[in-house]
Amino acid sequence: MKGFTLYERFSRTVRLNPSISGLLVAFTVSGGGLVAYSEAKSPDGLNIADSSEADNKRKRVVVLGTGWAGTSFVKNLKNASYDVQVISPRNYFTFTPLLPSVTCGTVEARSIVEPIRKIVKKKSVDIRYWEAECFKIDPENKQVYCRANQETDLNGKEEFVVPYDYLVIAVGARPNTFNTPGVEENCHFLKEVEDAQKIRSTVVDCFESACLPTLSDEERKRILQFVVVGGGPTGVEFAAELHDFVSEDLVKLYPRSKDLVKITLLEATDHILNMFDKRITAFAEEKFQRDGIDLKTGAMVVNVTDKEISTKEIKTGKISSMPYGMVVWSTGIGTHPVIRDFMRRIGQANRRALATDEWLRIEGCDNIYALGDCATINQRKVMEDILAIFKKADKDNSGTLTVKEFQEVLNDICERYPQLGLYLKNKRLHNIVDLLKDSKGDVAKESIELNIEEFKTILSEVDSQMKNLPATAQVAAQQGAYLANCFNRMEECEKNPEGPLRFRGEGRHRFRPFRYKHLGQFAPLGGEQTAAQLPGDWVSIGRSSQWLWYSVYASKLVSWRTRVSVISEWIMRFIFGRDSSGI
Amino acid sequence: MKGFTLYERFSRTVRLNPSISGLLVAFTVSGGGLVAYSEAKSPDGLNIADSSEADNKRKRVVVLGTGWAGTSFVKNLKNASYDVQVISPRNYFTFTPLLPSVTCGTVEARSIVEPIRKIVKKKSVDIRYWEAECFKIDPENKQVYCRANQETDLNGKEEFVVPYDYLVIAVGARPNTFNTPGVEENCHFLKEVEDAQKIRSTVVDCFESACLPTLSDEERKRILQFVVVGGGPTGVEFAAELHDFVSEDLVKLYPRSKDLVKITLLEATDHILNMFDKRITAFAEEKFQRDGIDLKTGAMVVNVTDKEISTKEIKTGKISSMPYGMVVWSTGIGTHPVIRDFMRRIGQANRRALATDEWLRIEGCDNIYALGDCATINQRKVMEDILAIFKKADKDNSGTLTVKEFQEVLNDICERYPQLGLYLKNKRLHNIVDLLKDSKGDVAKESIELNIEEFKTILSEVDSQMKNLPATAQVAAQQGAYLANCFNRMEECEKNPEGPLRFRGEGRHRFRPFRYKHLGQFAPLGGEQTAAQLPGDWVSIGRSSQWLWYSVYASKLVSWRTRVSVISEWIMRFIFGRDSSGI
Repeated sequence: MKGFTLYERFSRTVRLNPSISGLLVAFTVSGGGLVAYSEAKSPDGLNIADSSEADNKRKRVVVLGTGWAGTSFVKNLKNASYDVQVISPRNYFTFTPLLPSVTCGTVEARSIVEPIRKIVKKKSVDIRYWEAECFKIDPENKQVYCRANQETDLNGKEEFVVPYDYLVIAVGARPNTFNTPGVEENCHFLKEVEDAQKIRSTVVDCFESACLPTLSDEERKRILQFVVVGGGPTGVEFAAELHDFVSEDLVKLYPRSKDLVKITLLEATDHILNMFDKRITAFAEEKFQRDGIDLKTGAMVVNVTDKEISTKEIKTGKISSMPYGMVVWSTGIGTHPVIRDFMRRIGQANRRALATDEWLRIEGCDNIYALGDCATINQRKVMEDILAIFKKADKDNSGTLTVKEFQEVLNDICERYPQLGLYLKNKRLHNIVDLLKDSKGDVAKESIELNIEEFKTILSEVDSQMKNLPATAQVAAQQGAYLANCFNRMEECEKNPEGPLRFRGEGRHRFRPFRYKHLGQFAPLGGEQTAAQLPGDWVSIGRSSQWLWYSVYASKLVSWRTRVSVISEWIMRFIFGRDSSGI
Repeated sequence: MKGFTLYERFSRTVRLNPSISGLLVAFTVSGGGLVAYSEAKSPDGLNIADSSEADNKRKRVVVLGTGWAGTSFVKNLKNASYDVQVISPRNYFTFTPLLPSVTCGTVEARSIVEPIRKIVKKKSVDIRYWEAECFKIDPENKQVYCRANQETDLNGKEEFVVPYDYLVIAVGARPNTFNTPGVEENCHFLKEVEDAQKIRSTVVDCFESACLPTLSDEERKRILQFVVVGGGPTGVEFAAELHDFVSEDLVKLYPRSKDLVKITLLEATDHILNMFDKRITAFAEEKFQRDGIDLKTGAMVVNVTDKEISTKEIKTGKISSMPYGMVVWSTGIGTHPVIRDFMRRIGQANRRALATDEWLRIEGCDNIYALGDCATINQRKVMEDILAIFKKADKDNSGTLTVKEFQEVLNDICERYPQLGLYLKNKRLHNIVDLLKDSKGDVAKESIELNIEEFKTILSEVDSQMKNLPATAQVAAQQGAYLANCFNRMEECEKNPEGPLRFRGEGRHRFRPFRYKHLGQFAPLGGEQTAAQLPGDWVSIGRSSQWLWYSVYASKLVSWRTRVSVISEWIMRFIFGRDSSGI
């Protein structure tokens, strides 16, 4: 028995690596996790989840969602003075950039997910998780209504109410069908792990069906017609992955299918990969042509039946139909019903996503934050606040601004309204004095004075530099980390605000506003070729970028388990190819 | 571009390893696989799958099923003179002994399956595969009716007819609920990969549900009550795996559940692991008690509702109920509907499985074979044929048998009726002369003569040694290999029969009858402890058997891909633990 005990001890030590502190944290959490609940009732008769041990001092932070934004928030939260509750129908975080790889079995689904409890367990903050979906946000009573995933009693799925002091909404987005008829029923999406798994088994099913002995060649062709809607990075990567899967693995096992299979990529605009540099777009389009991937740009999907997809050529208005075996819809970002309902409540009904200010707060709501794909930052325009800015800058109330007065508030303006900095940069002006000189002509710097009208004229074009942030993992993760950092230093910054001047009010903002730092973007194109657009418009295409892609994604993976899994699967794919079992 | 081409070439070479002959085979198959089909119709109006290239000389062998028996058959078939068609709703072979490991994520589902096309592609025999389910066997017209898995046209799932010259039925078995009410609707089974995946996500769901903030402690307890029905090797292994999953991984993430979770194993007989040596049963029962697994023997399930399972104590007849969160039903072997229908057609309606003779042929059917779990060998009794045996042995037609006459046919009798050999072995007699002496008393060997009545008396107890083979992977695999070997040498053995004398007919049987060789059996008991019963009643229990288990299963896995996957997952589990994401 001695060997057994030693072995067990070794096994435990290995698992709780890398450091013994991990061991201590684990014990702390398991000790502190034993919480008793009171059975209070909400006005609707629903049970209220309230931990009786939660002392009144601790503020309750409720986080909705375990995607990039939500997970990044809880990962970065270090202030132990909060009582955090995470609510999401998925008890795991998904490393979404590798989802297209899952569709073709290059990587396993399980290798790109990590249980949120494991991510949370490592932390010293008290974070609890409920596997449930929030179906109603009630900002008046500061509580959210949740429904459990599973049926727990005879009355169906358990519903309960969770009160909050701070609410962090990070539920992400849904695919947007633009109300195109038949899309919901007949198309595959590519948002969740389950979607990727379904696509994988459908691809194999299509190949099996096309082999059935009694089909006509026409039917075989239809079944092997794969259509991808949307020429964004996800659609392009999926089309490329599918092409590799077919040409590297499937044609060996289904030799008759070789000449029948066809992949078509539909894109409504004139080019795929719009958001990338033109060189990348051109390379991708050329590569797809070489690979035999049929690229149809300027084609909008108008209808999908169970066997046919109809498109309208945007230029000519001509409608044509094509039979298909599988359609993957990877375009558009839609709103979750709970968010749409919440937006109606707070007067944002006409928007696509929740509007927040630069501090990720939802305007008009107390202590509600929104981040990730379900939110957009409604950047404040300079021209909206121009009078307030002028007034604040004009310290001597003279009705005119001197250069000195302007320069004193310049940093605050640039921080509060980042479009000004961008404007100067794009105009290749080194500082605001050049801008003034530009407008006032060649006058000595000291003698420049501006009245309000002149000030308006100078800044009139600044707001044109404003751009919405893209709905990417990178933005969501940075927002989560930013907000966690704000929460970490809430008290500290209350006393010593570190943000810019409040132009329309008194004092300073507590925090610096959120600023997105673009770290570059990849577009894998198949055949071990990847395009990368790095900061500073540096473009790299080819095998070297593929290796960069491998190393960046391997290093970004959330845990050592997923990292080792994914890397070994990449190696296995290289040696044995991808598996084609229909599971 | 040169680097790219070289790389590609290298990648291909690596994949098509281990030998260049693999490369040639692959090309042969992809070349020869391009088959054209005629669109003949069957009497029912269904399309008949008939390959126009199939010359009339080649016999069509249709194999139903891709389990152990079917796969072993096609793997071992080496005679290129057959036109083989494999039909199964699953396009992959599953390494079933590792299914219990999949239920708790010790091993991934994909790591224990291998596409049948990949297994088949390596062979020089022309083997085609259809992903379809056979729903009717028509022995009169020598054809099977099949239905595709997927809907291929507007009329629903494609149906077609496949004619055969030889039919090999290896569809396996279904779980048997013994018509217990509620089992079908409320219990999980453990037969297919999908079952194991569903069990895994249900276990995690139960833990998540039990954490929900508003449940009562009683409800938490109910949700965390796991019930396993059936104390056979599968049920025991699953209960042990679940216990390990809970105690090694889940309690760390769900610390509140530790004292609430309970695993109960129900077994109708008095002991678990009946088919094993008593020492193993005792060890397993003791270990389960130590682990806190609740073992209820002598308890038969009589009803399962959506929240409660009722059992009857067999001795007292007392019925008691217990609430549960999940039930896994792993007892009983049932018959597939297509087999039940076929059995009715051929007058075997009252049987549990298809009855075959010792050559795996279904009696009364021309050229139909059945193997694996869907069949049992109906061993011929000595007493049924006693007159024929006596007559054949009595060469001089004297009405009595001399020892010499008997000895001349003894080998044939022992081969045809293996129970005789077993009988002698169990009686510790070295040969038949001892048996004769035993009955005749101490007479000189040469002078022994037996009349028919004496002969009957001597052999009267021989048939008591007959035993049905267990429904295991080992039996199925050996049957598949045996039958393939018969097919390989069909023509050769037609000319030079190698089987025993036909006692009821003329000449010799073509082949030796199937003989099962038991190689031992494992019963993993959790906590790195395994019981092994090896041939010769050699029993080994403990950690060493666990390592034997690891190495036997790793070596038996069907391909290098699955082997490497499973081994690396074992290592990963050891280092990182099991994943608990709800997918």
